[in-house]
Amino acid sequence: MLVVEGPSGNGIGRSVAPLLGCDFVESRHALFPDGESEVGIVGPVKGNDLLLVQSTYPMQDKRLVELLLLADCAKKHGARSIGAIIPYLAYMRQDRLFEGKGNAVSINAVLEMLSFAGVTSLITVAPHNFESLSAFKGSVTVVDAAVPLAEEVKKDVENPFVLAPDEGAMDLARRFAEVLGCDYAYIEKRRDKQTGEVDILKEPKADLKGKEVIVVDDMISTGGTIAQAAKFAHSGGASSVIAAAAHLLMVSNAYDRIKEAGINAIYGTNTVPYGRAHMVDISDAVAAAIRGAAKKRMQGIDTEANRL
Amino acid sequence: MLVVEGPSGNGIGRSVAPLLGCDFVESRHALFPDGESEVGIVGPVKGNDLLLVQSTYPMQDKRLVELLLLADCAKKHGARSIGAIIPYLAYMRQDRLFEGKGNAVSINAVLEMLSFAGVTSLITVAPHNFESLSAFKGSVTVVDAAVPLAEEVKKDVENPFVLAPDEGAMDLARRFAEVLGCDYAYIEKRRDKQTGEVDILKEPKADLKGKEVIVVDDMISTGGTIAQAAKFAHSGGASSVIAAAAHLLMVSNAYDRIKEAGINAIYGTNTVPYGRAHMVDISDAVAAAIRGAAKKRMQGIDTEANRL
Repeated sequence: MLVVEGPSGNGIGRSVAPLLGCDFVESRHALFPDGESEVGIVGPVKGNDLLLVQSTYPMQDKRLVELLLLADCAKKHGARSIGAIIPYLAYMRQDRLFEGKGNAVSINAVLEMLSFAGVTSLITVAPHNFESLSAFKGSVTVVDAAVPLAEEVKKDVENPFVLAPDEGAMDLARRFAEVLGCDYAYIEKRRDKQTGEVDILKEPKADLKGKEVIVVDDMISTGGTIAQAAKFAHSGGASSVIAAAAHLLMVSNAYDRIKEAGINAIYGTNTVPYGRAHMVDISDAVAAAIRGAAKKRMQGIDTEANRL
Repeated sequence: MLVVEGPSGNGIGRSVAPLLGCDFVESRHALFPDGESEVGIVGPVKGNDLLLVQSTYPMQDKRLVELLLLADCAKKHGARSIGAIIPYLAYMRQDRLFEGKGNAVSINAVLEMLSFAGVTSLITVAPHNFESLSAFKGSVTVVDAAVPLAEEVKKDVENPFVLAPDEGAMDLARRFAEVLGCDYAYIEKRRDKQTGEVDILKEPKADLKGKEVIVVDDMISTGGTIAQAAKFAHSGGASSVIAAAAHLLMVSNAYDRIKEAGINAIYGTNTVPYGRAHMVDISDAVAAAIRGAAKKRMQGIDTEANRL
């Protein structure tokens, strides 16, 4: 097995390779003056099993095209099999077909393109939407970011409480709370059908007074959701508020926005590079998940079981 | 038949639709705050033959992904067939596999992805590389930009001479010269094997003295090739030098570069939007090529014959 790190592998390939006992090569990449990407794999591709590592943020489209071109390299140069570690997988939010909107189901389109490009196994961290991954034809291994993130947060808190900003992040909050050995709750919300604005419907039953509240989500994009939760936690008497998310997209003024809302610290992972947060290297968790999936396969457990 | 214009159709779809007697719809498109594209087709997609129009410059990767998502829309919402007018088709320069470079053959990868996305006919203008188009599984219609460009230039010149900056543009120069009713030649070049620099090997036999020299190429990227040819034409006594190319990519300081080399005017087409040139609307030529291809098909001529 050969681990190949793409232009946006964030060093995860280099770290994962020795953990899996694999050889490592960095991919070759360059930009033409007009902005076209050129990629190449200089290594023993022929007859080998390849594991490509490429995150898809920032510049989702460029990183995705580079990954598809890398897969094409692997295929055309005779790789025996192609797996892809995509630490942050973009285009996961458009997951349903609406007749009136005539929209694309982008996550399906992206997963189908990866299959077509020859990728037969997909490893990704904290996907926004678990169900949609079933559109991928090969095996899927999901890497949990909650445990490594919570372990990092645990070093810095004494009296924690985990808060999910909405019901969708409830299971994530539960997993954080397990590691931290504390309580958790979620903020119930209502969307105004006229204005589209989201209001907090009722308070969580828990008492936040004097707690170090950790607001958890899979990603921080514009920071709006986190900012709202931070204000809520402070109004409930939290002594401090921490934001923790696997993917720190931190679009435009997200940092200022959540700071102003009273976030005292941010924790994230290197699925997306971001300089102003406590960064957890996700490589160990990625390697462990791959080893775990391989072990399950060897024990003859259906690949379905690899899907967290 | 329904013509659907994508976010970078440059108005060509809107112009082509009535020329082909088709209905026209603009695609819906938006950007999420993090930069992901969202596209949709609001129109009678189901059971219809669709012709998507999307150029792929600037932002080749984003425009390509949007096109693939539009094709996915068309497929998932029940289109009967999908054609794509791609006025400027990017990724055409990486067209060969090199063992030592481990590179991708990007043009093949892109054409295969379009096929996979459901596109069964491809219409493109002045492709950089004709042969590579054979990697596309469906029918290919090539739109010649030389005639409409030369007709536009013809209005502004009295004593023209057409100059190809290298042997590769020789056939293009011949077609320009036919419309202009004038002579043509090419600049013979030699690449220094040590430095990689390109020198002009010998002068064209033609006398450029007092001529309005038109330097022709399929595209202007950094402007280096055009600038060199312009200097050469001036040194040969040209009274003025015009640059004409289908695709004006005009990377970074290309405009200043060719102006300083003595280019007096630039002619291009709306395959790529560019504000500082005489712009020829390619829509008529696109519609004519599609009608011509359809006619040939009806006459039972092999689709190979549609390939210029």
